[in-house]
Amino acid sequence: MSERIGFVGLGIMGGGMTRNLLKAGFEVVVWNRTVEKANVLKEQGATVATSPRAVAESAGIVLICVSDTPDVRDVIFGEQGLVHGAKAGTLVVDHSTISPGETKRIANELDTKGIRIIDAPISGGPEGAANGTLSIMAGGDAADMDRAMPFFRAMGKSITHVGPVGAGQMVKAVNQTLVLGTTLGMAEALLLAQAGGLDLQKALDAVKDGAAGSWMLSNRGPQILDRDFRPGFTIDLLQKDIRLVLEAADELGVPLPGTSLIFQLYRTLQRAGDGGKGNHGLVLALERLAGFEIEKSLPTTDA
Amino acid sequence: MSERIGFVGLGIMGGGMTRNLLKAGFEVVVWNRTVEKANVLKEQGATVATSPRAVAESAGIVLICVSDTPDVRDVIFGEQGLVHGAKAGTLVVDHSTISPGETKRIANELDTKGIRIIDAPISGGPEGAANGTLSIMAGGDAADMDRAMPFFRAMGKSITHVGPVGAGQMVKAVNQTLVLGTTLGMAEALLLAQAGGLDLQKALDAVKDGAAGSWMLSNRGPQILDRDFRPGFTIDLLQKDIRLVLEAADELGVPLPGTSLIFQLYRTLQRAGDGGKGNHGLVLALERLAGFEIEKSLPTTDA
Repeated sequence: MSERIGFVGLGIMGGGMTRNLLKAGFEVVVWNRTVEKANVLKEQGATVATSPRAVAESAGIVLICVSDTPDVRDVIFGEQGLVHGAKAGTLVVDHSTISPGETKRIANELDTKGIRIIDAPISGGPEGAANGTLSIMAGGDAADMDRAMPFFRAMGKSITHVGPVGAGQMVKAVNQTLVLGTTLGMAEALLLAQAGGLDLQKALDAVKDGAAGSWMLSNRGPQILDRDFRPGFTIDLLQKDIRLVLEAADELGVPLPGTSLIFQLYRTLQRAGDGGKGNHGLVLALERLAGFEIEKSLPTTDA
Repeated sequence: MSERIGFVGLGIMGGGMTRNLLKAGFEVVVWNRTVEKANVLKEQGATVATSPRAVAESAGIVLICVSDTPDVRDVIFGEQGLVHGAKAGTLVVDHSTISPGETKRIANELDTKGIRIIDAPISGGPEGAANGTLSIMAGGDAADMDRAMPFFRAMGKSITHVGPVGAGQMVKAVNQTLVLGTTLGMAEALLLAQAGGLDLQKALDAVKDGAAGSWMLSNRGPQILDRDFRPGFTIDLLQKDIRLVLEAADELGVPLPGTSLIFQLYRTLQRAGDGGKGNHGLVLALERLAGFEIEKSLPTTDA
């Protein structure tokens, strides 16, 4: 017998995650700010609650997947927040990407009421949420992890317990920082390749399996050559994450010169109305600085 | 029957490459500025010549692997340079990493004498040179490529004909630009992870197989955690390559803000006497800016 669980926040990520929980046979009570997204899940067997408070009244574990730090605070501590319905021993699992420092402060506040929390940000995008193949980076106590694990397994493929509460958010920040550097290198490299008159496809093929290789280059490089800037992850969402990285770094006193530069470059794209494009669109900012665009060469017969 | 070949420049890379050519059964005439390195190869069957000119007099194909653009010009056009011994139809293969623009100018000068050239920079480090597993990015005519291919196969694993003369150097520049972005992202991410109190090994494990993954992270990340800054590729050699990237970008009018920043960060390490460390040592520059060092956490039993 497994516990009944709650899910708060049924956007593109949370919706897919809830579907996988239902498919795995769990009883799920859901709530979403716009009720239509909750009602859609009724057909798959979800019970729709009228508030986060109501969710917490009927479920001992409540998963959250909302946009940003204030949204998490609101569903937990707001007028109709989880805390007003939760009992001592309720476990909150926050799948949102929010501030690591704020996560620790939330954990301390919840602790005074006997409420447990795991921060468990995710990566893998909408496809990962839909297919149950997310990466989940979780921070929390070992006993709480054991309790959450059956649900994590229904939603994710790679589940790592990275440390105490807050560590999940910090690892997510580390993850995004890595992605940013790789993306900037890719953007500058492709711009140079284009200016140098290279066949970009051949150039990619020549370097992608060596020391220059990365997930970004293998997966987003070909998209850039096709000028396909549809989002796996949007610039607007990434900017929110970079802001969290830079705030965490500021709080900790760490200089991140590359990440700062990248934030400013993405800002130019948001300013130009391109915030809805995919994060590999960083190259568009450099193209505008350079005054030319990357083009995929047509196949040629010689060399 | 294959042609006799020449090899000029028997450093850590050229020495290993020549050994693999000899092992594959090719007749090799060698020259090196310091003759001791040439004499060592006598035992493996190489013939030692007294100048690049003498090499070109006795071999129809001459491979070069020296440090920088002026060295290549010197072994080709110097007083005892290849051109004075070469016949029309001689093929020069330049494995050095030098300026793409200068490569084209050298090709034009050689063309007036009926001498052919392929630019074929390599990656894979001393291990790749020793084991015959280099990546070779070659620019040149298809017929010249056919002629060089048996020798490339003896030295390399991944051989890509990337375009006309100069394209090999440009692809190498693209390769290095990619490596730089990934290295900066890794350095900033590890610094943030350390400041955030993470178990760095767990953090690496949690992110390395997802969108944040790269060759650098998988191969050099663990070295950084072990504070092992022995060079696969030194900062001093990389700075030479970054200079080539920035010069090429300047010549082509391309802005590379990230690459410029990274050049300056590596400069601080050269200034501190760390130019002989491996290129993953970029993190040391950020550590000094931050005033703390990355430490690998000891294994713990909980979490």
